Amino acid sequence: MRKFKVTFLPSRKEREIIEGETVLEAARESGVEVESLCGGLRNCGKCKVQLLDGTLSPFTDDESKFIPDCEKANGYRLACVAQILSDVQIFVPEISRIEKQGLRKAVAERTIGLNPAILPYYVELPPASLNDLTADVDRLKNGLWEKYHLHGLDIDYPTLLKLSHALREKDWKVTASIWMEKEILDVRPGRSDHFYGLAIDIGTTTIAGYLCDLQNGELIATQSMMNPQVVYGEDVMSRITYTATHADGLEKLHRSIINGLNQLIKAIVEGCSLFSKDILDLTVVGNTAMHHLFLKIDPQYLGVSPFTPTVHQSINIKARDLGLKVHPSANVYLLPIEAGFVGADNVGVLIAQEPYNQDQMVLIIDVGTNGELVLGNRNRLLSSSCATGPALEGAHIKFGMRATNGAIEKVRIDPETLKVDFKVVGETQWKSESKSVKAKGICGSGILDAVAELYWNGIIEKSGRLKKERSMPRLKTSDEGAEFVIAEKDETTHGKEITLTQQDIRNIQLAKAALYAGARLMMKRCGVQKLDRVMLAGSFGTHIDAERAMRIGMFPECDLNNVIAVGNAAGEGAMIALLNREKRGKAEEIARKVEYLELTLEKNFQEEFIEAIPFPNLKGFL
Amino acid sequence: MRKFKVTFLPSRKEREIIEGETVLEAARESGVEVESLCGGLRNCGKCKVQLLDGTLSPFTDDESKFIPDCEKANGYRLACVAQILSDVQIFVPEISRIEKQGLRKAVAERTIGLNPAILPYYVELPPASLNDLTADVDRLKNGLWEKYHLHGLDIDYPTLLKLSHALREKDWKVTASIWMEKEILDVRPGRSDHFYGLAIDIGTTTIAGYLCDLQNGELIATQSMMNPQVVYGEDVMSRITYTATHADGLEKLHRSIINGLNQLIKAIVEGCSLFSKDILDLTVVGNTAMHHLFLKIDPQYLGVSPFTPTVHQSINIKARDLGLKVHPSANVYLLPIEAGFVGADNVGVLIAQEPYNQDQMVLIIDVGTNGELVLGNRNRLLSSSCATGPALEGAHIKFGMRATNGAIEKVRIDPETLKVDFKVVGETQWKSESKSVKAKGICGSGILDAVAELYWNGIIEKSGRLKKERSMPRLKTSDEGAEFVIAEKDETTHGKEITLTQQDIRNIQLAKAALYAGARLMMKRCGVQKLDRVMLAGSFGTHIDAERAMRIGMFPECDLNNVIAVGNAAGEGAMIALLNREKRGKAEEIARKVEYLELTLEKNFQEEFIEAIPFPNLKGFL
Repeated sequence: MRKFKVTFLPSRKEREIIEGETVLEAARESGVEVESLCGGLRNCGKCKVQLLDGTLSPFTDDESKFIPDCEKANGYRLACVAQILSDVQIFVPEISRIEKQGLRKAVAERTIGLNPAILPYYVELPPASLNDLTADVDRLKNGLWEKYHLHGLDIDYPTLLKLSHALREKDWKVTASIWMEKEILDVRPGRSDHFYGLAIDIGTTTIAGYLCDLQNGELIATQSMMNPQVVYGEDVMSRITYTATHADGLEKLHRSIINGLNQLIKAIVEGCSLFSKDILDLTVVGNTAMHHLFLKIDPQYLGVSPFTPTVHQSINIKARDLGLKVHPSANVYLLPIEAGFVGADNVGVLIAQEPYNQDQMVLIIDVGTNGELVLGNRNRLLSSSCATGPALEGAHIKFGMRATNGAIEKVRIDPETLKVDFKVVGETQWKSESKSVKAKGICGSGILDAVAELYWNGIIEKSGRLKKERSMPRLKTSDEGAEFVIAEKDETTHGKEITLTQQDIRNIQLAKAALYAGARLMMKRCGVQKLDRVMLAGSFGTHIDAERAMRIGMFPECDLNNVIAVGNAAGEGAMIALLNREKRGKAEEIARKVEYLELTLEKNFQEEFIEAIPFPNLKGFL
Repeated sequence: MRKFKVTFLPSRKEREIIEGETVLEAARESGVEVESLCGGLRNCGKCKVQLLDGTLSPFTDDESKFIPDCEKANGYRLACVAQILSDVQIFVPEISRIEKQGLRKAVAERTIGLNPAILPYYVELPPASLNDLTADVDRLKNGLWEKYHLHGLDIDYPTLLKLSHALREKDWKVTASIWMEKEILDVRPGRSDHFYGLAIDIGTTTIAGYLCDLQNGELIATQSMMNPQVVYGEDVMSRITYTATHADGLEKLHRSIINGLNQLIKAIVEGCSLFSKDILDLTVVGNTAMHHLFLKIDPQYLGVSPFTPTVHQSINIKARDLGLKVHPSANVYLLPIEAGFVGADNVGVLIAQEPYNQDQMVLIIDVGTNGELVLGNRNRLLSSSCATGPALEGAHIKFGMRATNGAIEKVRIDPETLKVDFKVVGETQWKSESKSVKAKGICGSGILDAVAELYWNGIIEKSGRLKKERSMPRLKTSDEGAEFVIAEKDETTHGKEITLTQQDIRNIQLAKAALYAGARLMMKRCGVQKLDRVMLAGSFGTHIDAERAMRIGMFPECDLNNVIAVGNAAGEGAMIALLNREKRGKAEEIARKVEYLELTLEKNFQEEFIEAIPFPNLKGFL
């Protein structure tokens, strides 16, 4: 077994690897983030790298699909295919690098009734003596009974270990932190009023933490980072596949999210001059796959029909059992799951938005790799999940990328001149306002904008076909068919045109048709003709242009004034559950109450879906 | 910081150590067992070793107390004092070696009503389908509800992780192992009827395990080993001192017992062709210090007045939280503690002997470093603990040793000729029957025999004084005062006489007086004139001669036919609690019901104690 040294540029990270490892594997081990939407399945072509020195395995047919001859001649390879056969130097071009995503998860400021799961109880106990031989635990319990009438308390093991010292340190005066009036999680000498909790939202792409003071309910810090599982696959299905095809896949993905959360926890507490052991309570939301991987439950049955999760109900588990570096007795509460793909994140959205308390008929759309839909009001709640595919997140799109620096996030086409203008993430000015604005790719909201603008300006037909007969310089035909140039060569960071292809438009059509058909079927099931309100949740919902989304037919008609982005409602739900334990009961109740509609079993599904493919749709209202 | 190599002979174990470590520290790290009754406090003189080569730190005054000039000249040193200053070769003489103790812990065979904490439940579940999207956990719980009307079940985390596979492996037919009708600890595909439990008795000197089949209640294997904490100090107080004087002392003693138990578990399951993961339930008894160290609770407050334990109540804790290598979800149940020194081992004795179900007035004596006494019947139970000191275990006795091979365990003196005969552990014949029988020292039961025989034959006066005026070759006077030769030079393994000194006799007098006075005070408190029955529990109780013990006044008068050795009743109690969970409730109830009598607070204690010092005692019945 020979070993070689691999050096990655421009980061200059080095590592010793075993002969035959792929460049992608070596990159993951070295902490070099290389884009890999398909998770190493050789079908996205996003992991291009350039060999500067050394020997890799021979060029394959898989690679020739994505790497034209001119790039091949310059040593370009797919990192997931090419195996290392000598010491090598590998350049990771900008287009293949994963950029840190901006802090896009921020919860709306709002007042939440404060009723945390952890409360502090201060007691002054009589000292032990030969006339009072009560054991330390009993003495504490007796004191808590006499002063607060708490009874039947358990004491968590790590707290038991330090109890005898804690009681004696300040002359038998202590503050006990008690979880749900059931379990003593912490005993500190003297009076102590500082108790913190952390709400966590595990998104497929981004994880976010919200640190709250449990004494006053204040949100004192937020912190986001990329979900480090991204290197094992961009979307949920890639990661499920990764666990199914690698013996240690589940362990790796689990360790990856736990390590990521430990980094996040360290950063957030240090930013507030606190210690990680000050965190005594945690709540977690995430889609079903993130939920399972966080717990290290094998997600493989989520990936195949009938998509059964291992567990629906909310879960309480010790942070130490998961390896989270907070107080050793801290509890982690995971919100319940509704069904298959409708996860704890959606339950978070529900307790944040409370459609179950409203008379109005509300549609909540949370778009990720899957579109999760909830329709209803105080009388009834329906949920469903539709396979939008990852197109709306920028995947399976030729120049698609996540909403990181350099991604085109807004597109406008002048109806008179047909000139294209765009704005990129990380820049405040539009392209037309500053020559220095350069694009690297295009993200979900930009793609949606582009499609809507092209449709309004007659460049895309109602059927979705690019009007090739129309004569304009930006409309081109390549081997792959028609495409429209969004950014010219001199407007990009890599000197290549950024285009929207016919295939890209088809992908968007399939995604928006899935959402639209899903919503229509749910409305039919409820006997609803018209929506009173549409809520767009999540990062995508916050950044898309609601009017354009509606006008290309992403969701059924609604008064535009009542279409609102509700931000990271899932994260907000986690925070609500952190600050108010009654909401945990509510979450459990609602998760059971929501009726799950399996769209593929609805007899009109195919018909509704096909009718929704054109712009805006066959029953179009515009 | 220089490093040296130390080589121990005759074991030939080698280790690299840091300059300045003591020989005893080096021996512990190398796994060489060197006797150390005082735990390194320099006051027992048992850890003598001989320097064969190399340099140790200079000879000290502490050492001169135990090492005469002739031994000093031959390189003898105390291992706990001498520091290593070069590469050295150290010989550990036989007298300083710790021998493996024989399997002295065996429980009486008896029938225990079978009602284990773990029961298996077999269910056949409907498979998941698109029309039945119930999550796996809910599906299992529904099945257990429908067939067995079990509800409100929790599922333990490691079991949750493997649930989805287990359900599907044999077509949705599984056996769930459920603890106390509360928590699912294990789910196995198909039908499975094999469930094992382990009862553990952690003695200060010996640990014992009893492996039981929980389906039929059979005891299928037993296994004993020396408590590996012995190298950190012979008795409870030495170990408490060790934790108080070493920063990592608590951690070391805890790891030591856990590692020891893992060895024991491995040996016991392999002997039965089982796997450690087949053990799903465990029960543990031990004195309060062993109990605390097993849990890693700092025992320091047990060692100082008012001797408060951290916890009285029984404890349920996951085996994995302790690092025990059994089924990851297995529960460990620790029997409750009565008070300070009256520990879970004594509660085990109570549920094994059930004095609370008897009309007769019973005295139970469990002698270890402390004598634990229980007096009572169905109306009332009193417990107390008396400081016997370790003399009855062979410590603080000039030639004292534990009951391992070579220890004199029985002594007889011919009333006519005053010839001494003895029997040693590990030999079936008496000295008079075989010339090859050689003694190494004398253990508790031998000391008691010797004292009783000397008293009966008038060589010891009623006051305990050796009659120096009596002319006989075995009665000698040395610098330390009078002593009686039990074994001549040619009858020992080391060629030195084994004697019983005046000081040894005084130590035995103090020990037996403490027991006698304790029992008398308890009888007074209960208004009892005479005992109906005396039960001698534990290893010491099994091996002493009950008649001789009574006749020198170790306990108040009782018909000799009703003085019985009950064997390892503590271990038996652990097994009873393993097989019958109702007995756990009974243990909790009894531990609370027993009244603890703090002897030192009784106003007649000093008087009773002093009156009990002579043979048999001032109120003697003989």
